[in-house]
Amino acid sequence: MALATAAALCAALPAAAQSSLTLFGVVDLSAQHIRGDGHLTRLESGGLNGSRLGFKGQEDLGGGLAASFHLEAGLSADTGRGRPNSIGNVIETPGDFISFNRRSTVGLMGRFGEVRAGRDYTPVADNHTDFDVFGNSGVGDSSLLTQALAIGLVAGRGVRTDVRASNAVVYVLPADLGGFWGYGMVALSEKTRDDEPAGFLRGDGGHRGIRLGWEGAGLNMALAYGKSILSFQQDLSNIHFGGTYTWNDLQFFGQLSRERTTIAEVRHTNDAAALGVVWTLGVQAIKFQVVNSRIKRTGMESMRATMYSAGYDYNLSKRTALYGAVSYIRNNAAGTFDLGVPVMPGQNASGVQVGMRHAF
Amino acid sequence: MALATAAALCAALPAAAQSSLTLFGVVDLSAQHIRGDGHLTRLESGGLNGSRLGFKGQEDLGGGLAASFHLEAGLSADTGRGRPNSIGNVIETPGDFISFNRRSTVGLMGRFGEVRAGRDYTPVADNHTDFDVFGNSGVGDSSLLTQALAIGLVAGRGVRTDVRASNAVVYVLPADLGGFWGYGMVALSEKTRDDEPAGFLRGDGGHRGIRLGWEGAGLNMALAYGKSILSFQQDLSNIHFGGTYTWNDLQFFGQLSRERTTIAEVRHTNDAAALGVVWTLGVQAIKFQVVNSRIKRTGMESMRATMYSAGYDYNLSKRTALYGAVSYIRNNAAGTFDLGVPVMPGQNASGVQVGMRHAF
Amino acid sequence: MALATAAALCAALPAAAQSSLTLFGVVDLSAQHIRGDGHLTRLESGGLNGSRLGFKGQEDLGGGLAASFHLEAGLSADTGRGRPNSIGNVIETPGDFISFNRRSTVGLMGRFGEVRAGRDYTPVADNHTDFDVFGNSGVGDSSLLTQALAIGLVAGRGVRTDVRASNAVVYVLPADLGGFWGYGMVALSEKTRDDEPAGFLRGDGGHRGIRLGWEGAGLNMALAYGKSILSFQQDLSNIHFGGTYTWNDLQFFGQLSRERTTIAEVRHTNDAAALGVVWTLGVQAIKFQVVNSRIKRTGMESMRATMYSAGYDYNLSKRTALYGAVSYIRNNAAGTFDLGVPVMPGQNASGVQVGMRHAF
Repeated sequence: MALATAAALCAALPAAAQSSLTLFGVVDLSAQHIRGDGHLTRLESGGLNGSRLGFKGQEDLGGGLAASFHLEAGLSADTGRGRPNSIGNVIETPGDFISFNRRSTVGLMGRFGEVRAGRDYTPVADNHTDFDVFGNSGVGDSSLLTQALAIGLVAGRGVRTDVRASNAVVYVLPADLGGFWGYGMVALSEKTRDDEPAGFLRGDGGHRGIRLGWEGAGLNMALAYGKSILSFQQDLSNIHFGGTYTWNDLQFFGQLSRERTTIAEVRHTNDAAALGVVWTLGVQAIKFQVVNSRIKRTGMESMRATMYSAGYDYNLSKRTALYGAVSYIRNNAAGTFDLGVPVMPGQNASGVQVGMRHAF
Repeated sequence: MALATAAALCAALPAAAQSSLTLFGVVDLSAQHIRGDGHLTRLESGGLNGSRLGFKGQEDLGGGLAASFHLEAGLSADTGRGRPNSIGNVIETPGDFISFNRRSTVGLMGRFGEVRAGRDYTPVADNHTDFDVFGNSGVGDSSLLTQALAIGLVAGRGVRTDVRASNAVVYVLPADLGGFWGYGMVALSEKTRDDEPAGFLRGDGGHRGIRLGWEGAGLNMALAYGKSILSFQQDLSNIHFGGTYTWNDLQFFGQLSRERTTIAEVRHTNDAAALGVVWTLGVQAIKFQVVNSRIKRTGMESMRATMYSAGYDYNLSKRTALYGAVSYIRNNAAGTFDLGVPVMPGQNASGVQVGMRHAF
Repeated sequence: MALATAAALCAALPAAAQSSLTLFGVVDLSAQHIRGDGHLTRLESGGLNGSRLGFKGQEDLGGGLAASFHLEAGLSADTGRGRPNSIGNVIETPGDFISFNRRSTVGLMGRFGEVRAGRDYTPVADNHTDFDVFGNSGVGDSSLLTQALAIGLVAGRGVRTDVRASNAVVYVLPADLGGFWGYGMVALSEKTRDDEPAGFLRGDGGHRGIRLGWEGAGLNMALAYGKSILSFQQDLSNIHFGGTYTWNDLQFFGQLSRERTTIAEVRHTNDAAALGVVWTLGVQAIKFQVVNSRIKRTGMESMRATMYSAGYDYNLSKRTALYGAVSYIRNNAAGTFDLGVPVMPGQNASGVQVGMRHAF
């Protein structure tokens, strides 16, 4: 039973556009070849945009008020399975099956802005994604360096609130503030007592974050801060500033990020910076980015890496694109940054991908 | 791709209304503070109605016959995860991911009534829900007392057919019986041999239930009986009588329930009663309910509790409501009834919630 | 919010038919009684067609090009749970929850044919299904004999690429080749190193397959080959030839299949053949099939079985059918082929089912 062209039909019905129900998604697959200490050829989901299936809707309540919901499941399109979620923001569930791990919220919006609750992106993760040339997807994903501590890529086990947080309440500022915009999040720990689940204390799994930006004159820039509470590693904090500037066919990207946490009683500070550009030529886009990261560790040698990435997109339509990208990570003697295949300290990593993204 | 306003469009097409495909759901989240032996502040799914996502449809086959299907997945909207289901009606699966745990049926209806098969609510669980002021949702849920043995809240591990049963065949009486209505269910055990899975015998996991009601003159009342087969605890039976009476803006609710089972060779009998009222004032509703439960145990002191609950709903539309509720459980010296945070025997429990429900 | 009759509306819009978004599925449940070494009465999903829920769409890109996606989740409609999938084509995940295990692909089609990637049916499994009177569903499913080694029914643990493969790239020949049609698949192993996961080598989980057919003059026939790579059992290969011939109300089915693999250092060869007929009488269909299988094992007695099956379908509409089927398996002294309840060597098996299938 086809639901075809409901969208087309609805375009002719302005009155009804106030309330909506939308089924949407992305299926994005690429062939990747990754080199580290060994190599891997794989079909991978989400080279350009994360594969997903979602349901969202909005209801006009009158008087400027609207209710909305948003349920969005991440997919591993190469296997038909889902993506990891978490139990209580502290224990990762495997991506064997489907959950609405990307977003699961209900909200109320009006002149006061928007209040929503559920599972959502953290404000600081949004800052990383929006100011990365590659949108934190595929082999060029800058968060492999800039969020290395939160993701747990190079040391320790990271946090489960590195990208999204469950049990969260989000407040979004109203739209008309002279170019200023922003939102904040408080995610609850929901632990009833210490050591339940084992190894965690009351408060663990909580997250607080805020993001404030300004957009105008071709510029969009924002400062974000997030703190993930994990008592045994004295929490993980991340402050991130990013921006884009659009000039004719060129869009420039910049990021500055500092992550701090304690792993096995060693203080880690990850200072990272990135610069990039996207050159749009009609349906084509050419992308470059350089990312540098240095993780200082008390009493130990710093881990450093520089990541060079280039990409090319060919848009067959607004919804469908063919794309390719290459990426190279140069580690210092202690660095173990990788692209999916682990490396020995000091070893370099590289990756190449060719794929197709279809959105619906 | 928007499916927006398909509903609106379809309203103008009476002929097509006979066959339908519907996407529906609820996202309901509340902030709760629960006190027991310790306390917990949490974002919780389903304070007013269980969060869910479903697909259902009906096909007109002519001659008064219609085929239908119903697939409905429970959601933990605070995390985007699913809700528990069961393997063979005896082993609980965690709610980490999504399944159509709420309902998964195919059916055929005609003048003879309806026959459907799959996973569905048990008749006796429906009686508990329909005659509870709070619809068995949130802090005021009377089933925390009335179904304490089936849910396994205060003793033993309960049964997996406390609310729904898999492998079930349901027969529903036809609509026009002078106000009488009813249905029955037989759910199969599907065990091939004893001790597979370990600890269970052939027949375990089976369920039989029936519900008969009468509606008219502002009154709706029904008697229901259900028996869950678990040989090692000599089965769990529940007989429940409930009713509502509507008088102007007031709707009165009443319940009488008896559960019986054997846990660790001790016979348990849970006699419970509830009285409640809902006062509807335009878009607002005010709710009160008192529930009393006494679990008699051979050779041991009875566990008793009284639960006092009050609620307030403000309906922004038919689909969207803001709500609040408070609940207090007073245990006797042996009572361990709680609201989500375990209590020591004799300790009291309390809970408060403020939330929003959006249906689509 | 109803999505009803979007299909009906769209039929009137030829221009829009080029791009589509379709929600589809099947809920199929039957009561089965199976006999082996013991017996089992169960409600089972998929007696006529596998229960499923899917989302698919196509986008016209102009110039004869089109992009498409297809996400299809298998359901156990008797419990509302999902169906097994695999991790890396080597480890089975249980069917506790939902994944798009049946198919998860994105593709591009044009005059060159179609290229798609993701998780999909293997070509040789399609040959088994298309030329089985019972479509590899329910008690008459011929693959219980013809794919006994791949499924792991009678010996060893089979392969996880017996029906579908993840991490696959598929190429489909264009449509107009004078009746010839075909497609091929390469599925990647994606193992980075030996013994990760434990017990598997690099290359394990890979699959290669091809299927070539010709259709015309009432005849449809195809040859297919598939090879699943599992080093510890010297791979599993399957060559299968099948065809159907339609003559008035009768459709004849034939299959010839050879599976080869090594289990515990013993070479197994499964030679199977099947003959069947479907007699269509208006809305009714009567089905018969005989399947014979012989598994030769180096230095051991062969396992042989003959399966006799009959079925009857009554189509209430194109989407809804009532059906019944019976099946009987006669094993030789070493044979252990069964219908869902294990048998002792030489014991026979039987099964009967009565059910309803509803598609949407």
